[in-house]
Amino acid sequence: MTVLANTAPPDTAADQPAFGNATGLVCRECGADYSLGAAYSCIECFGPLEVAYDLTGITREAITAGPQSLWRYAPLLPVAPYAGSEPNLHPGMTKLVRADNLADALGMTAPLWVKDDSGNPTHSFKDRVVAVAQSAARRLGLSTIACASTGNLANAVAAAAARAGMGSVVVIPANLEAGKVITTATYGGTLLAVRGNYDDVNRLCSELIGDPITQTWGFVNVNLRPYYAEGSKTLGYEVAEQLGWRTPGQVVIPVASGSLLTKVDKAWRELTSLGLIPEGDYRVFGAQADGCSPVARAFADGIDVIRPVKPDTIAKSLAIGNPADGPYALDAVRRTGGAVGSVSDPEIVSAIRLLARTEGIFAETAGGVTLATFQRLLESGQAARDSETVLLNTGDGLKTLDAVADVVGPTAVIDASVSQVHEALATP
Amino acid sequence: MTVLANTAPPDTAADQPAFGNATGLVCRECGADYSLGAAYSCIECFGPLEVAYDLTGITREAITAGPQSLWRYAPLLPVAPYAGSEPNLHPGMTKLVRADNLADALGMTAPLWVKDDSGNPTHSFKDRVVAVAQSAARRLGLSTIACASTGNLANAVAAAAARAGMGSVVVIPANLEAGKVITTATYGGTLLAVRGNYDDVNRLCSELIGDPITQTWGFVNVNLRPYYAEGSKTLGYEVAEQLGWRTPGQVVIPVASGSLLTKVDKAWRELTSLGLIPEGDYRVFGAQADGCSPVARAFADGIDVIRPVKPDTIAKSLAIGNPADGPYALDAVRRTGGAVGSVSDPEIVSAIRLLARTEGIFAETAGGVTLATFQRLLESGQAARDSETVLLNTGDGLKTLDAVADVVGPTAVIDASVSQVHEALATP
Repeated sequence: MTVLANTAPPDTAADQPAFGNATGLVCRECGADYSLGAAYSCIECFGPLEVAYDLTGITREAITAGPQSLWRYAPLLPVAPYAGSEPNLHPGMTKLVRADNLADALGMTAPLWVKDDSGNPTHSFKDRVVAVAQSAARRLGLSTIACASTGNLANAVAAAAARAGMGSVVVIPANLEAGKVITTATYGGTLLAVRGNYDDVNRLCSELIGDPITQTWGFVNVNLRPYYAEGSKTLGYEVAEQLGWRTPGQVVIPVASGSLLTKVDKAWRELTSLGLIPEGDYRVFGAQADGCSPVARAFADGIDVIRPVKPDTIAKSLAIGNPADGPYALDAVRRTGGAVGSVSDPEIVSAIRLLARTEGIFAETAGGVTLATFQRLLESGQAARDSETVLLNTGDGLKTLDAVADVVGPTAVIDASVSQVHEALATP
Repeated sequence: MTVLANTAPPDTAADQPAFGNATGLVCRECGADYSLGAAYSCIECFGPLEVAYDLTGITREAITAGPQSLWRYAPLLPVAPYAGSEPNLHPGMTKLVRADNLADALGMTAPLWVKDDSGNPTHSFKDRVVAVAQSAARRLGLSTIACASTGNLANAVAAAAARAGMGSVVVIPANLEAGKVITTATYGGTLLAVRGNYDDVNRLCSELIGDPITQTWGFVNVNLRPYYAEGSKTLGYEVAEQLGWRTPGQVVIPVASGSLLTKVDKAWRELTSLGLIPEGDYRVFGAQADGCSPVARAFADGIDVIRPVKPDTIAKSLAIGNPADGPYALDAVRRTGGAVGSVSDPEIVSAIRLLARTEGIFAETAGGVTLATFQRLLESGQAARDSETVLLNTGDGLKTLDAVADVVGPTAVIDASVSQVHEALATP
């Protein structure tokens, strides 16, 4: 794809709705209505706010004629029609890979697919949510995008700000993987490393909102969260379109805050209600690491309340001990007849290696969590081998090399001689 | 894009030419003809062999109706028409990014673009050449793909083999960046680390050809090199198509073996002779690191002979001291009125940071070499600020984190308190 010039909005921008088909914000809990702004929490009941739309006249033809990026779904997002022509990283339309070798290894009798979001510009699905939040920041007159991050979001925010000539303030736990820290710092902007875990970082960002220093900042995953979260729907739209406008039988989604899982489900419900895909039964499965599995725990216990935990896992991008959208993720899983499972760190590493060996896809730890959990769910019978399945790989193994560094390496270290090659290959 | 199932060739395969429009191999030096096979060197004069074609009836319309990958150019490659439906990584159609912020920083008055090949499946342009060589290996009945590599090719070969269920043997210098070694090892296959530099590795691979142990192996960049090298043309095709079927005024290309540079030039000459793009004057520039600059040296000295060097640079993916296609790269540069420059390691690091800060593109060291060399060529007046320019970024910064690890880091490490954020931001 050609990425368009970093031009200003077109002359027609004034005639176009700043947030497209979005009509307002609405509380998920009590249904109170709000106008579109940098708000994320209901004044009445403290419930989370979500974008409401007036969606009509959206056709498959218009979508497929759009750009090879998530902007093809602009009419389904809280963005102006011209959002895609403003400077941004143009994420989305990543590959949906038919994973026949992996299916064989798992004993699947139905097709298996990997939606590989490591193909995004900064190699995780976070480029999607940032693109939508960045557009909202512009419309709201905010010149700096900020975030609390476990790493992938840090990369995405700093890179998107650089492309657009905006400021960035990225707040991370100080113990993140080097790959994510160095990368973010290279993109420039302000990078604050906090002594604490992600939940500490998140709390700090909430405290910063309202402080005068952040007047021109939009925290993409805090006060721009309603817009940001909608970006995750595009993963669901793309899977449906790439399957030929239908849903799979099963989908397995890693759970950090729980937002991604709920938004993929929302995307498919939207496409169904718009008549763009046929009504289809699909089951949504959630995947967590044992070291941070509050949603899996609540699912296993059959309760609605998510008890916060202190994360301890190599899957740092999923290390959110107090997941804001956990209850909604549970709802979607239970409504569709799915399940939430969790796996150990060694299982995560094994699954990363299995996916790489069978399909040439090197996933970060979150991708290992997804595959390993699917393996567990197959073994327990909670997921089915004869149901077409999509696994979401949300990030790139290059960012979490430490996870596998101790267990893989060269077959042999040799001198540059043919006889030493013979020896190396003869060794079993 | 949806990546098709890992199916066997279609039933019609027997009716289709195994190498598409390719008609044979021909010696670049003496013009001797050979049939299509695993051959790379002329028996008469030891010159390199190149693919010859019979190209007719190729239209823009047929290409643009093709898949969102390099397989849209299959009729211009030595591959069967069905090559794209066999298991492979589906590389190509990476983003051409309009780099207005970088253009401003460089004082350009003409448009500047970055062709960002870090968007390929294993994040370098090597996925392109491997895809074409892998197809040739299949047609020639070879079940294992092998290579001598400085790292990116190692990733590409191991991943492509995994996807296709083929064997792989990857030979690398033992001192490569950890990111490239761990990644390759994770994909599986055989990984041999050689005590020596790339030229030692390359020599070993040449010696292995003919040894019985390699009977079913195709060395993608040795005895499959004629096919492999043609894959680089797709970078040229894509740039021309993405610019609206035309060439830019200037292109800057990193030089390792010199093959990529010669093939981008070849691609544009082919498109011109086929009438797919108008005749246009373009200048081809080559970029090397000071620590491995045999082609830049020959250019500066105005001679045709490339004197081999012992590489010593952080740009390991360009560390080929005895570049096989150096003389042909010189020819293309001189014919088009370009130049070959070289830059120091600190300049490489600065350029990586400049590109990341201005455009949100995190390049590996080779990308830093390209941008830094362009800056030098602008300063010397050898390249022009008023000529539309495309810079090729061939790889991803995540694979060469060491290059920047010592010079970037968090703005501040703080406790989770609003007052410490104030302090951190107040510090100049």
